[in-house]
Amino acid sequence: MLEQLKQKVLKANLALPRHHLVTFTWGNVSAVDREKGLVVIKPSGVEYDVMQAEDMVVVDLHTGEVVEGHKKPSSDTPTHLELYRRFPSIGGIVHTHSRHATIWAQAGEDIIAAGTTHADYFYGPIPCTRKMTAREIAAEYELETGKVIVETFLERNIDPSQVPAVLVHSHGPFAWGSDADNAVHNAVVLEEIAYMNLFSRQLQPALAPMQQELLDKHYLRKHGKNAYYGQ
Amino acid sequence: MLEQLKQKVLKANLALPRHHLVTFTWGNVSAVDREKGLVVIKPSGVEYDVMQAEDMVVVDLHTGEVVEGHKKPSSDTPTHLELYRRFPSIGGIVHTHSRHATIWAQAGEDIIAAGTTHADYFYGPIPCTRKMTAREIAAEYELETGKVIVETFLERNIDPSQVPAVLVHSHGPFAWGSDADNAVHNAVVLEEIAYMNLFSRQLQPALAPMQQELLDKHYLRKHGKNAYYGQ
Amino acid sequence: MLEQLKQKVLKANLALPRHHLVTFTWGNVSAVDREKGLVVIKPSGVEYDVMQAEDMVVVDLHTGEVVEGHKKPSSDTPTHLELYRRFPSIGGIVHTHSRHATIWAQAGEDIIAAGTTHADYFYGPIPCTRKMTAREIAAEYELETGKVIVETFLERNIDPSQVPAVLVHSHGPFAWGSDADNAVHNAVVLEEIAYMNLFSRQLQPALAPMQQELLDKHYLRKHGKNAYYGQ
Amino acid sequence: MLEQLKQKVLKANLALPRHHLVTFTWGNVSAVDREKGLVVIKPSGVEYDVMQAEDMVVVDLHTGEVVEGHKKPSSDTPTHLELYRRFPSIGGIVHTHSRHATIWAQAGEDIIAAGTTHADYFYGPIPCTRKMTAREIAAEYELETGKVIVETFLERNIDPSQVPAVLVHSHGPFAWGSDADNAVHNAVVLEEIAYMNLFSRQLQPALAPMQQELLDKHYLRKHGKNAYYGQ
Repeated sequence: MLEQLKQKVLKANLALPRHHLVTFTWGNVSAVDREKGLVVIKPSGVEYDVMQAEDMVVVDLHTGEVVEGHKKPSSDTPTHLELYRRFPSIGGIVHTHSRHATIWAQAGEDIIAAGTTHADYFYGPIPCTRKMTAREIAAEYELETGKVIVETFLERNIDPSQVPAVLVHSHGPFAWGSDADNAVHNAVVLEEIAYMNLFSRQLQPALAPMQQELLDKHYLRKHGKNAYYGQ
Repeated sequence: MLEQLKQKVLKANLALPRHHLVTFTWGNVSAVDREKGLVVIKPSGVEYDVMQAEDMVVVDLHTGEVVEGHKKPSSDTPTHLELYRRFPSIGGIVHTHSRHATIWAQAGEDIIAAGTTHADYFYGPIPCTRKMTAREIAAEYELETGKVIVETFLERNIDPSQVPAVLVHSHGPFAWGSDADNAVHNAVVLEEIAYMNLFSRQLQPALAPMQQELLDKHYLRKHGKNAYYGQ
Repeated sequence: MLEQLKQKVLKANLALPRHHLVTFTWGNVSAVDREKGLVVIKPSGVEYDVMQAEDMVVVDLHTGEVVEGHKKPSSDTPTHLELYRRFPSIGGIVHTHSRHATIWAQAGEDIIAAGTTHADYFYGPIPCTRKMTAREIAAEYELETGKVIVETFLERNIDPSQVPAVLVHSHGPFAWGSDADNAVHNAVVLEEIAYMNLFSRQLQPALAPMQQELLDKHYLRKHGKNAYYGQ
Repeated sequence: MLEQLKQKVLKANLALPRHHLVTFTWGNVSAVDREKGLVVIKPSGVEYDVMQAEDMVVVDLHTGEVVEGHKKPSSDTPTHLELYRRFPSIGGIVHTHSRHATIWAQAGEDIIAAGTTHADYFYGPIPCTRKMTAREIAAEYELETGKVIVETFLERNIDPSQVPAVLVHSHGPFAWGSDADNAVHNAVVLEEIAYMNLFSRQLQPALAPMQQELLDKHYLRKHGKNAYYGQ
């Protein structure tokens, strides 16, 4: 079932250590098949160097029940599912504790758009969620994590297809994209700009966002109907 | 004698350079066989790339005498032994001068729990010991180092099985775990959070601990009778 | 056409990931054949690990038109061309988003000459351009980027053959040299001093330029008619 | 002539890139044969990956004249020679622009002894020289560099065999040791503590030296007649 998607999700998971985004098993990638209403996700706590396509777990997008797989899905599965359900444009999701994105999440701050590296991929600041409430933590925590992410995008009127990442307060980043591979790509970019902004702000404690015109120019030369970057 | 444990201790020692936790010979891992009252530990000042299982030294847990081995045990052996004697729940210990944990030790500060990466492994702040006194340094220094660590956990009422690491003031970290391998695992996590907290505090000079509820949630979903993380 | 130069440009492009100057496809190197009035440049958005010499694109130095090549040239081509036209001494150009040079570009600051590593390659501060205007961004943006670089060197009376790099405000670095290979060499040095100055200034917030005499000594022992460094 | 020493000096030079201490050709190692009054040193500006033992240059300790070798010796040769002449206990010298030691040199500050990593190798602060005068720079600059280093150790009454490294103001580090290999070892340690102190001071802006008793203990357990570290 979904053998091709499992291969893609496996490959995307294996890209995480190669891009130095994860330590041990601290990361997971999933992808959705929207026609079938199924999500393929990494199993919980399995080492990357022994992971196989057949270890990937298939869960129902709506109920979260395991449809196929001999291992438990990632404990973050309910977060992934909530994002797929509420962000209909996305096809893949990645969660990591990558060092510099996590540094910002722990500090509880947005990553502002301070340069064209950011603007080439993210059309505005990458938001940091509010802290979760005691009630949310005590309840279905991983599902509530997804809900807090969705709330952040709705309340701040951010389009998740234009800003394909978030920082969960005191936790770490989630990134997404058109598919699993693109989600990992965005997670790499996020880590890169998290690093650069950390030290740009060290040089300029009052670091301000870049000009809106420059943000527009770089984002729109790579995205949308007037894009002219690439082949 | 203890050939299997020697293999495990060798393997755990060799994991230190692979995880970038040591420069030259600056680290050592040991493990205890509590039934036999014996500890297996790395020899002093031997290069990792020539180290063999037969170089591991067997010492008596209570007297510290070498029971088997043709090399001198690590000069930090008395520290390890004191920790095994006073922390009955631990099975392996690692000492390194890993960069970021050492940075905090040199600054003489605890590493507070600022995010879920920390909370997944350490149930509260990782304490930094007080400075050692001139008398302690002049006496059996390595044994006294162990005693200061124990004192830190007793006085601050910290459970060493829930906070499996310490920073020795002006020195560097010790980490421990259920066995040698788990101790190295915790030493890697310690280094990771030492890095992240350094820069989260750069962003937020008044960086505060995470919410107690979130700390509870993450620690307890991986440890204890209600854990649900992993396979 | 220009097969040898294509090989050199390919090789210089492949040196970027090897020197850790680029993530994904975020960089490009070109070289000029001044006799023929042609520039060879990397194609837009092609992965480094599949790039071939035949993918390199030949464009006219003056018109910017593609003279040979089955792929689109880098979107930054108009910037490269403007620099070749206005800086007649240079033979190769490299653009990257290398982490530390970009950190300074995002902060909008020059990299001052703070030590001999800098002085061995750059005869004075590496300038950061002014921000581009809304009009410049809306117009032929990549061409205007080149014009702002040229303006920076003219207005501040900097000789581009003595200071072979620039930071484009809110964007990142361009470096150049006698040929493509030398341009990459200078981009590596730029990244190195960008790193070092960032943290020298952390130690000394009022970090001042080195003495003029020492800058003269180091630059001139490697460049010009009295050079005595190397074989 | 001195074939064995050439091999050792070659090997020590090749260790520099392996320990990430040099970029391009920015480093050099030498060793002295005190009986013969000869020094073997790396040639100037030669790439590490093509360097051979036969490229090493033999120079006279006292006159600086090339005694054997088909290449020019490192431009820093007069600095090395002055150190060998004035520090009779040393057998090998290394010069690099390693990132973090250079950061301190550019900031013009000593590296204080802030922890046991330092104390295991350096018996007190690693001094930074004063700035060189215009006269010294204009004269035999590389020789004067050596003289300023020697002056620093004499005026501050530091024993170069107990503190085997220095930071040259606005330039970078020199380290030395009993032979070429030991000099490289000390250069690696210097870089390590330069990194750690940079960030310990970020955490504690008023970072103070460690207790004298602890410095004594760690230095003396590895050096001198009462040493007990290693096999």
